[in-house]
Amino acid sequence: MTTVTAYAAPSAKAPLERTTVERRPVGEFDVLIDIKFAGICHSDIHQARDGWGEGIFPMVPGHEIAGIVTEVGPGVTKFAVGDRVGVGCMVDSCRECDNCKAGLEQYCTKGTVYTYNGRDKNGDPTYGGYSTHIVVDENYTVRIPDGLALDVAAPLLCAGITTYSPLKHWNVGPGKKVAVVGMGGLGHMGVKIAHALGAEVTVLSQSLRKKDDGLRLGADHYYATSDPETFEKLRGTFDVILSTVSAPLDFDAFLSLLRTDGTLVNVGAPEEPVSLNLFSLLNDRTSLAGSGIGGIRETQEMLDFCAAHGFGAEIELIEASQINEAYERVLDSDVRYRFVIDVATI
Amino acid sequence: MTTVTAYAAPSAKAPLERTTVERRPVGEFDVLIDIKFAGICHSDIHQARDGWGEGIFPMVPGHEIAGIVTEVGPGVTKFAVGDRVGVGCMVDSCRECDNCKAGLEQYCTKGTVYTYNGRDKNGDPTYGGYSTHIVVDENYTVRIPDGLALDVAAPLLCAGITTYSPLKHWNVGPGKKVAVVGMGGLGHMGVKIAHALGAEVTVLSQSLRKKDDGLRLGADHYYATSDPETFEKLRGTFDVILSTVSAPLDFDAFLSLLRTDGTLVNVGAPEEPVSLNLFSLLNDRTSLAGSGIGGIRETQEMLDFCAAHGFGAEIELIEASQINEAYERVLDSDVRYRFVIDVATI
Repeated sequence: MTTVTAYAAPSAKAPLERTTVERRPVGEFDVLIDIKFAGICHSDIHQARDGWGEGIFPMVPGHEIAGIVTEVGPGVTKFAVGDRVGVGCMVDSCRECDNCKAGLEQYCTKGTVYTYNGRDKNGDPTYGGYSTHIVVDENYTVRIPDGLALDVAAPLLCAGITTYSPLKHWNVGPGKKVAVVGMGGLGHMGVKIAHALGAEVTVLSQSLRKKDDGLRLGADHYYATSDPETFEKLRGTFDVILSTVSAPLDFDAFLSLLRTDGTLVNVGAPEEPVSLNLFSLLNDRTSLAGSGIGGIRETQEMLDFCAAHGFGAEIELIEASQINEAYERVLDSDVRYRFVIDVATI
Repeated sequence: MTTVTAYAAPSAKAPLERTTVERRPVGEFDVLIDIKFAGICHSDIHQARDGWGEGIFPMVPGHEIAGIVTEVGPGVTKFAVGDRVGVGCMVDSCRECDNCKAGLEQYCTKGTVYTYNGRDKNGDPTYGGYSTHIVVDENYTVRIPDGLALDVAAPLLCAGITTYSPLKHWNVGPGKKVAVVGMGGLGHMGVKIAHALGAEVTVLSQSLRKKDDGLRLGADHYYATSDPETFEKLRGTFDVILSTVSAPLDFDAFLSLLRTDGTLVNVGAPEEPVSLNLFSLLNDRTSLAGSGIGGIRETQEMLDFCAAHGFGAEIELIEASQINEAYERVLDSDVRYRFVIDVATI
């Protein structure tokens, strides 16, 4: 066991503070990663404040991890000391079920092991990326291409794959009209990726405050959802709507913006149930779907895709001492577009 | 104009009574149909009681119509006097939009003209099948194959196509596990059709009361949803769940029965919004979808499919004077499985 420095929430809703946690010894197939950067995901806040319930405390959040391999186990074949690597939302899964075999480890039928606020196969709690080091099985580690700086790569491990995976799954590409709801950490990546995939991209944001950014990042159109005319004007327009917001939406209104056979994919995670009029789905054979992160193979594909298109996330680099303040700013939608912790400051 | 005898609801929630309505003259592309049988659909009751609002009264319900052509307009090429024909939920659409051109007239972007409780292109109210005759454009009329008796064919025009269309659209067939929720007018057709398509079929009904029927009609398994163990046992089982019930379901519980990438298609029409926990969709990339009836071409395909497989609906034939009593029995789920009005008794 190795004691490492970390930032943790000691209990539900308590501010995060500097502490130490234990990392397991480097096993046969493990890599030890010197974490350089860790993104702050909205779901870190949900979990640190126990919004989804059953949180394991103390909790070290962080599943957007970028760093350098500093040690490898004797069985490791995929990585060597010095490699630039990333770790996302999961660090293990059963590896035997149909989903694991299909590269959909995030839907492991026996239960994915999440990077933090989870329990590994021994039952030990997992601790995330707000920490100087992490030990991860090589099969749940991905390579960060040389063209991508580690700081802007970190958020791709959750925000990138969470938007890339559904956009690919629902066949977003040339000739398709896509709306991205929300211009936050996930949304801004959705815009970049959908644009890079060749689709016509519309941002649906509460206001026009971030319009210039949206257009710069690749959106073709930008509408405020606070304006009722938006819903009138865009009725029946989109093949795919990617909703990235955690706040409860008027799903009936957003579903009305789909074309026949369109899909509204939700990747946000509201804490409360939403209300839905089923006629909203009947009238145009539309679907309301969900999608959770993406598999390991697809995460690597996404990183390679972003590198090939020359983009990472738009970030604001912060020191570890600013984490609690950053949480408040995320809740106020006051971040452009992802806070990334400089782990050297932990 | 021709005056014909019909059963109508004079106002919202009033019992249906014998009356007369006017049918338009037979136009160039119209057929005059001597209606022999008309099915009673649950949605007739919703609409006659104005459950969806904005009902047009007096209302002659009925969109499961089977009869004989007795006159054709001079431009008609598809039908001749004496032909056995059916009319379903719609009698016109714009014929020009992408959906109409694609044979998805039910999703006409300019608005489908429904068989009753609608308005035709002149603005006149439409009157349905609880009536001795109807005048319909030949393009919205389908042929009932010789092998199908008219009485058991009538319910196929709504209950048949409403279940056939989504089962086909979501690729139900050999190797697929399908659940049909509800063993009523729609559900029993869903079982027959899914079985004929080669899928492994499970009925999920409130109780086991209709289990023998379900197995006889083609189900491989039959479970009571009133038993909580059903949800435990069947977790993660189905590729497609077809929900045919109008009562509000616990959608989160039913979604948990889907496999990764599965779809719960709803064809019931609850009057109230439903509640949904979006995590139910995130955890296995599942979808909640809707589907409304089917296009004209697909309705013909469905009738041919049923005839080829030698089945129509399971019906209880009633006289017109029993309509109001039949409505009550439908609301009590006391019908096996579709009431069909013998129009000779109107």
